[in-house]
Amino acid sequence: MTEKRPFDILNAALNNNVVVGLKGGRDIRGLMVSYDVHMNIVLEKAEELANGEVKRGIGTVLLRGDSVVYISPA
Amino acid sequence: MTEKRPFDILNAALNNNVVVGLKGGRDIRGLMVSYDVHMNIVLEKAEELANGEVKRGIGTVLLRGDSVVYISPA
Amino acid sequence: MTEKRPFDILNAALNNNVVVGLKGGRDIRGLMVSYDVHMNIVLEKAEELANGEVKRGIGTVLLRGDSVVYISPA
Amino acid sequence: MTEKRPFDILNAALNNNVVVGLKGGRDIRGLMVSYDVHMNIVLEKAEELANGEVKRGIGTVLLRGDSVVYISPA
Amino acid sequence: MTEKRPFDILNAALNNNVVVGLKGGRDIRGLMVSYDVHMNIVLEKAEELANGEVKRGIGTVLLRGDSVVYISPA
Amino acid sequence: MTEKRPFDILNAALNNNVVVGLKGGRDIRGLMVSYDVHMNIVLEKAEELANGEVKRGIGTVLLRGDSVVYISPA
Amino acid sequence: MTEKRPFDILNAALNNNVVVGLKGGRDIRGLMVSYDVHMNIVLEKAEELANGEVKRGIGTVLLRGDSVVYISPA
Repeated sequence: MTEKRPFDILNAALNNNVVVGLKGGRDIRGLMVSYDVHMNIVLEKAEELANGEVKRGIGTVLLRGDSVVYISPA
Repeated sequence: MTEKRPFDILNAALNNNVVVGLKGGRDIRGLMVSYDVHMNIVLEKAEELANGEVKRGIGTVLLRGDSVVYISPA
Repeated sequence: MTEKRPFDILNAALNNNVVVGLKGGRDIRGLMVSYDVHMNIVLEKAEELANGEVKRGIGTVLLRGDSVVYISPA
Repeated sequence: MTEKRPFDILNAALNNNVVVGLKGGRDIRGLMVSYDVHMNIVLEKAEELANGEVKRGIGTVLLRGDSVVYISPA
Repeated sequence: MTEKRPFDILNAALNNNVVVGLKGGRDIRGLMVSYDVHMNIVLEKAEELANGEVKRGIGTVLLRGDSVVYISPA
Repeated sequence: MTEKRPFDILNAALNNNVVVGLKGGRDIRGLMVSYDVHMNIVLEKAEELANGEVKRGIGTVLLRGDSVVYISPA
Repeated sequence: MTEKRPFDILNAALNNNVVVGLKGGRDIRGLMVSYDVHMNIVLEKAEELANGEVKRGIGTVLLRGDSVVYISPA
C-alpha cells in the first residue's frame, strides 16, 4: 500500500516532476531532488508557469518552505 | 454521537471530498487522504475552483497547513 | 453573572449562531459546535456573507484559528 | 498617578468605550469588557466604523489579538 | 555619551513626540508615554498623519508591537 | 580579510550610510548607529527614498527587524 | 556525487551568482558570499531585476531570510 501522509507525498515525489505554488501566486514546475522538515524544496530544470504556460526557465532553485502553499506531483 | 471538535472534523473527512480555502483566495476541492497536526492536508483528484466552477484539474496535492484558511466537507 | 473573558465568549457561543470574520475579508455565519485553544472553530449550516447578504451555502466548516480576525454571536 | 504602561491602558479601558484598529483596515468601536495576555479583546455594543461614521452594528464581538493594530480609548 | 542601541532610542523618546509607522502604511504621531519588550507603545495626544498632514485626532492609543514598522523621534 | 557573514555586514556598516528596504516597499537611507540580534536597526540623518530620490527627511529612526527586507551599504 | 539537500544548494552557490526572489516580488541577482541558518544571505555586485532586465545596481546587500522566497544559481 502506498503511504499518503503529508511527508510521504514529498518522499514519493523525489526525482519526479512537481508543481509548487508559492505565496504571492507564482507556480514553479521542476524535478524535485530534495526537501527538509521545513518544506524547503530543491527543484532542478525548474520553470515558472503562468496560466499553465511556461513563462521562463529557472534551472536549479531552492524554494523556502515558509513560502510554499502547495506541492503537486505533475 | 458524532464528535465535532476541530480535528474530529478532519478525521471524519478522511476518504471524503472536501473544499479547502487557501490564503490568497484559491479554493481546492478533492478527496482528503491524510492530514497532520500542522493541518498539512493531502487531497487526491483535486481541482481548483473559481466561483464554484472547476477551473483546472490538479490531481494529488499536498496543501501546507500554514496556508489553510478553512476546510469544508463537500 | 455571565463571564465575559475572551474564551468565555466562545464557550457561551457554543450551539448558537456566530459570524466569524476571516483574514482577507470573508465573513462566515453558522452554528458554532466547537473550538480549541488555537481558536480553530467548527461551524455547521455555515454560509458565506457579502455585505450582510448570504452569498453561498457552505454546510459544515472548520475555520483555522490563524485566519480568524473576529467572532461575534449573531 | 495613573499608570501608563501598555497593559495598564487596557486595564484602564475596561468598561469604557474604545476603538480597535484591525489588520486589513477595519475599525471597531465598542465597550471593552475584557482582554487577555494575547490582546484578545471582547467588546459589547460594538459597531464597525468607516471614515469615522458607523457602518453597521455588530453587538458583542471577540477580536483576536493577532489581528489588532491599535486600541484607543474613545 | 548618549546611548544609541535600539531600545535606548525608545527610552530616550519617553515623554517626547514620536512618529510611529504601522504595517499597512498608517503613520501616528504622539507623545510616547511607555513601551515594553514587544515594542507595544503607548502614545498620548496622538494624531494620524497622511502625507505629513494631520488627518484626525486619536488621543491616547496603544500600538501593538507586532504592527510597528518604525519609530522616529519627531 | 574582511568578514562577509550576514551579521559581519551589519557590523562593518556601523557609522556608515546604508539603505534599508522595508516590507511594503519603503526604502530608508541613513547613517547606521546600531543594530541588535533581531535586526532592529537605528539610523540617524535618515531619509525616505522613492525611485532613488529623497522623498522626505526623517532624522533618527528605529526600524523594527521584523519589517526589514534588506540592508545595503550605500 | 553532488549533494542536493536544501542547504547544500546554498553551500554550492557560494562565490557564484544567484537570483534571490523576495516577498513582494523583487528579484535580486548577485554573487553569494555568505548565508546562515535563517537563510539570511549576503550578495555582492547585486542588481535588482525587473522582467529579467537590470533595473538598478545595489552593490553589497544583506537579504533577511524571512523575506526570501527562492534562491536560484544564475
